[in-house]
This record gives sequence, C-alpha cells and structure tokens, in this order.
Amino acid sequence: MRQSQLFTKTRREAPKDEVAKNAQLLLRGGYIYKEMAGAYVYLPLGLRVLNRIMNVIREEMDGIGAQEILMTSLQDKAIWEATGRWSDEVVDNWFKTKLKSGADVGLAFTCEEPLTNLMREYIHSHRDLPLAAYQLQTKFRNEARAKSGIMRGREFIMKDAYSFSKDVDEHNEVYERYAEAYMRIFTRLGLGELTYKTFASGGSFSKYSHEYQTITDAGEDTIYIDDKKHIAINEEVLNDEVLADLGVQRDSLREAKAVEVGNIFTLGTKFSDAYDLNYLDEEGHPHRVFMGSYGIGPGRVMGTIVEVLSDEKGIVWPESVAPFSFHIVALGYEDEAVKAEADKLYEALNARGITVLLDDRIGPSAGEKFADSDLLGMPKRVVVSKKTIAAGLYELKDRKTGEVTTIAHEQLIA
Amino acid sequence: MRQSQLFTKTRREAPKDEVAKNAQLLLRGGYIYKEMAGAYVYLPLGLRVLNRIMNVIREEMDGIGAQEILMTSLQDKAIWEATGRWSDEVVDNWFKTKLKSGADVGLAFTCEEPLTNLMREYIHSHRDLPLAAYQLQTKFRNEARAKSGIMRGREFIMKDAYSFSKDVDEHNEVYERYAEAYMRIFTRLGLGELTYKTFASGGSFSKYSHEYQTITDAGEDTIYIDDKKHIAINEEVLNDEVLADLGVQRDSLREAKAVEVGNIFTLGTKFSDAYDLNYLDEEGHPHRVFMGSYGIGPGRVMGTIVEVLSDEKGIVWPESVAPFSFHIVALGYEDEAVKAEADKLYEALNARGITVLLDDRIGPSAGEKFADSDLLGMPKRVVVSKKTIAAGLYELKDRKTGEVTTIAHEQLIA
Repeated sequence: MRQSQLFTKTRREAPKDEVAKNAQLLLRGGYIYKEMAGAYVYLPLGLRVLNRIMNVIREEMDGIGAQEILMTSLQDKAIWEATGRWSDEVVDNWFKTKLKSGADVGLAFTCEEPLTNLMREYIHSHRDLPLAAYQLQTKFRNEARAKSGIMRGREFIMKDAYSFSKDVDEHNEVYERYAEAYMRIFTRLGLGELTYKTFASGGSFSKYSHEYQTITDAGEDTIYIDDKKHIAINEEVLNDEVLADLGVQRDSLREAKAVEVGNIFTLGTKFSDAYDLNYLDEEGHPHRVFMGSYGIGPGRVMGTIVEVLSDEKGIVWPESVAPFSFHIVALGYEDEAVKAEADKLYEALNARGITVLLDDRIGPSAGEKFADSDLLGMPKRVVVSKKTIAAGLYELKDRKTGEVTTIAHEQLIA
Repeated sequence: MRQSQLFTKTRREAPKDEVAKNAQLLLRGGYIYKEMAGAYVYLPLGLRVLNRIMNVIREEMDGIGAQEILMTSLQDKAIWEATGRWSDEVVDNWFKTKLKSGADVGLAFTCEEPLTNLMREYIHSHRDLPLAAYQLQTKFRNEARAKSGIMRGREFIMKDAYSFSKDVDEHNEVYERYAEAYMRIFTRLGLGELTYKTFASGGSFSKYSHEYQTITDAGEDTIYIDDKKHIAINEEVLNDEVLADLGVQRDSLREAKAVEVGNIFTLGTKFSDAYDLNYLDEEGHPHRVFMGSYGIGPGRVMGTIVEVLSDEKGIVWPESVAPFSFHIVALGYEDEAVKAEADKLYEALNARGITVLLDDRIGPSAGEKFADSDLLGMPKRVVVSKKTIAAGLYELKDRKTGEVTTIAHEQLIA
C-alpha cells in the first residue's frame, strides 16, 4: 500500500486521557481510534493486524476440527434465566436493552447459554459427538472502569469455542488438543516465550482450569512461574496441594505480573443440565453432554504484543501479524529517479506476494519518515534515496534487532 | 468437508413460526438458526456463504480504493446529538443501553455521525481528499416486526462505505465508481439480471439517490422497470419530471415487486456541517468536505439469492457464493469399494483446490441423500455408488439446470 493513500496519519503524542501504553502507541500510529473508554475503532492498519491474528486462531481451530459459526449479540432473557445468569446480581457487567415490544434482551458477554440451547437441535446421538463450534464475535461487557486500552474493552472481539463430548474421558482428550493448539497460537503470534500455561481454579467438574498468561507489567494477574517446565500457577491457587500436584518446588518459582491472553475451562454438565442436553448411547440410554469452553481475545492479544514487544521508538510487530512485512521509506520521492526506483522495488515485492508499505509521501523530512517507520513497526525497512541509488545498494534494517545490512538492488528483488 | 462431521442436520419442515421463504429453506438446510425474530445465528454452511458474499464486496470496495476499518457498535450519545438523530422521535429504531456510570449509549444502526466525527482527526488538507472508508459491521435496528427472515433483521451485518470529497464534481466521479462497482458486485453474486439500478428520492444535495433493487415477490418495494436501459424508477418518484430526466416513456415501464439489496446516496455537506469537517485548499482557504454513503447488506443479499434462485426442491447457490462447488453423494458408503472411490474423488478434487462436501453418512437412504443434496443446493452433484463404479462413469448433475452428464472417472478427476 502507498502511504500517501492511507487516510490515517501518525501523531507525536497520544491523547492525554489515554493511560495504557498499548493504546498510546496504537493511537499514535493511527492503528486505532478511541470512540469511548473501552471501545476502539480499528483503522486500516489496525484491522490488518487484527485480521492476521484472527486468521492464525482460525487456522488452529479449524485444524483441530472446530466448526466456525457466528452467533447473535442480541440475547433472549428467557434462555439466560435457565442458568440464573440473567440476574445483574449474578453477572454484574451485562449491557441490556429492550425490543419495541418491551421484551428485555441482553448483549452477549459470552455464549454458553445460547449455544447449549442451540445444540438441542443438533445433538441427539452418540454419533453426533464429540463436536466443537467456535466464533470470532463481538462481545459486550459493561466494565465500570476501562483503562487498559484494547486489552480490556467494553466491546471487543472474542474467539470463543465450545466443545461437546460424550463423557469426561472424551472431553479430556478434546481439552488436551485445545491446550496444544493454544500454545501453537501464541507461539505463532510471537508471544510463545513470554506466555505460560497457568494452573487456575477449576469448577465443579475439574480441579483446574488453564489460563494462558503473558508476562507484562500491564497485566492484572500475578503468576508464579516454573521456568524448567515452562508452566505457571495463578496466585489464587498457589498452595501446597497444587505444588504437589504439579511436582514443583515453591523455591523454584518466580513471581511475575501477567495478562491472561486465553483460557480453557472444563464446564462439565453445568450447562447441559440446565437445558436438558442429552445424547443416546448405543443402547439407547440417555446421558448428559459434557462440555468445555475455550477463549482468546484477539484484540487483547494485539494489545499484549504492543505492550511486550515495543521499544522506546514504537511498535515492533512480529512478522506473523505485521500489517506489512516491508516498509520502503523513499527519501525525496519528488525526485524522478527516487520515485522510479522506489516504485520498481514496491512493485517487484508486491509481485512476489510480499506485503509492502511504501512511504511515498512528499513533505515529511527524512527524520520524520524514520520516526514514523519506527513507530509503525514493520519488521523490515528499506531506504530508497539518491544516495542508495548512487551506491546501487539498499540499506535493510531489522526493526526488532536494529541490525542494518546493505544489499545490492538485484539481490533484494531476487 | 465430510458431511458426517458437519454438526448441523437438515430437517423436512421449517419451524411453523417462520413465514419467510428464505429463512424456511435456510433453517431446513441447517444454514442458519433463529435466535429470536430478526436475529439469526449463521451455522457453518451459512457462514461460508456469508463470507463468500462479503469477500466479493470487499474485493470490489478495495478495487476502487476504499479502505476497510471496523467501527464500534457502542455509540456516544453526544456525537449523535450533533445531528439531532439521537432522538427517538427522529430515529425510531434505536437500541439504547447504559454504561455503569449511567451514561446513555446507542447501538450503531448506521455510522455517518461517528465516522464524520472521526475524520476530523485525519482530514485537514486538499491533499487528504478524496478518501473513502468502509466496514463490514454488525448493525442493530429495533424493528417493530421482523418477519422477512435474514432479509430484514434486528441485528445484521452491513457493508457501509462513506466517501469524502473536495466538492460535488469530485464526489460525482467517486459516486459513479461506486455505481459501477455495485453492479459488478450483484452480477458476480448471481443477481445481475434481476437487479436494477433504481432512481429514488435524493436529499438536499442531489435530485436522486440510487437503489439496487432485485425483483422478487418477497420485496417490500414497488419499482417500474425500463427493460431496454436496464434501469428502474422507485414508485415514490415516478412522475413526469423523472420520466423526462431519464428519457423513458411511461408506457414502456413494467411494474415489479423488488427488494433493495444496496443503495448509494449523496450526503453532501449535511454531516460535515454538523461536525465542522473542513479541508484547506491550495491557497489555505477552508471548505466543507462533500460526502456520500454506500450500503449493502450481505445477509439480505444471501436471503435474496435464496428467494429468487431456489426451486421447489430447495436452494440453488450460484457458484460464486456456494459453500462448496461439488457435492459428492456416496450411496452405500459402508461398502469398502464405494468408500474408497468416494474418498479418492473427494481428495482429488480437494487437492485441486475445488471445494467439496462429501456425503459420507451411513444411515440415510439414497432418496434422503438426494433430497438433502437438492435442499442444500451445491452447484454440482456427483453420485458414487456400486453402480457408478461398475460402469466406470460418474453421473454429474447441474443443480440449476438439472442437466445430467456422465463422465469417465479419469476425466472428472482431470
């Protein structure tokens, strides 16, 4: 894409009311726009990042056989009353509104209830199980305070998956596949080293649930990490019994602040009990369906990447989520020779399927262009100027390491 | 995809409370699920169709230089008060809710107000114009009655685009590009012949707006068609002046019921006036930005395709939006030879990048499988059975024309 065509612009300073580092940098880069506290618009560059994150998640969910759907945000009060979660005393962050008829409806903050109810249409026999469905859907949560940028929103996209199994054994196999897929997702998104499968409190049907916690001071959770096993324990369950279960020593743990980028949870029959969701076994006997749920917030992941990988100059995108792989910075694009060379390189890379942002703006100084390039954070920067043309060499800079290599024109294009 | 793995199932009858043909067929096929009147879940097959429709729209919007964004559903009351459209007396289909602080927020039914306000951050100079942004975003409209299936929902995805130009002349060029892109979209989606660019009432800034109306008895509008010019006039503006403007004779028009699948509208400076959205020309003089808006409902398009292209046996998807191009119907999949041959064909087509649904279910009769295949509506059906294996020939049936051709095994795979 040509930067002169991009309608967003960078800004030197973040708005004064924005306290979260992720939102400050993303606002300055023109990735997002703050509509209100906890509700952000994804601008062209930001949407490219969000889509890349969602596509990685989608590939991994499809890869373990989950089927993508798209549920409604408007939720029927009657369905939620079946589990008691319609009540504002039970769930304190509902957004609710009314139909013209006066009937109450809620805005989805999660989907266990409506999906379990829906599955009564499709689950009847042992042959229908196991199955799993997921969606990338906007969720609404009426947070009293929303100060974490895109890491905790009043409105945000969530990948929520739900599995339906015949019994706890089948469920445990499914659950393990999600656990493995989740680590693959965070590794592919550039957060693997900083993200720990973390033991947290379970429910009536399993001793533990698992959170995927990424170390950052911007996190709201405290975890205790065992570096050898690359696992962690949420402080809420740090006790001798848990240490014994996991075979780790208290002394070997280190404390860290972290953000929960994903979680997987054994629901058991809590929801199938509420909606009488049964299947018939081979002998025709009815059994409750055994469920699990699996969440990731792509926007929170994007915010976390900015929190943990950025430096003092700006954002540093991993290749897997960067809006563009290359940033061609043309200095003096008004010069015919620079224009011709920059365009040639831009088209050559595009033709090879490499995504490129070309800074073809006329006006900004070299210093401004370099500062913008650092702020925007594409993995690789190439400068095209009269000097590089005279030398027949490109300067190729790695945004993450800062390493500069010079490379002949023909070589880069090849 | 293997049909045995698909969690949805077909049903013989639509639910009694569903009166719209599009929803009846889509519910029977397991494409959608009705959460409440006017709010439908897209199930795996339905989401595939919706995504294909959205991708055609996306390609055409990107092709004319519009930049994709994703705005928020939660809308700030203060922003909407600037145009007077916060009032329920002016806009009667708002859904509204409240933040914990007690502040009112609305759920987006359209986005002229927040986007014009947002653009104050990015539009300053004549060099910033023209520009256009679009999104594929969930909209909420509190319809008193919602009886048209997915053609008119309380919650639905809308492609809404907005253009920002220096003046009416520049706007008119942009507008014409949208008009052309819209006809390309409907042609690609299989609705070209039945869809007419229709003259409708304009606003303060242009005599006409244009609707894209597809002929169907399920439509709520009445249009008058000039077949020679392939244009139409909405009955609301059918008068001698309009006839003269378009150079058409009243006698040559035929009346038809139609559904509005898209519309393009000249907004002029209505919104830029409300938000003081100006740009500076080359001499530094300020001018109002001149705007247009351009909408298409992908779900409504999907419903319209079902309304106008289905037959008495079920849905007939155009190749461009079908969830799968081929439906392999294996009869007697429990037989080793049938299984081997069906799997071989399935894998061969998949390997060539052709999308295939394989009916590998054991249990349903041949008649049930054929009825399901007709209901689901993939463009091409291939039967694999002991008989076709013995003959060394496949029966290839075109869902639209019903035409059956026989083709040698090797030939089909090639």
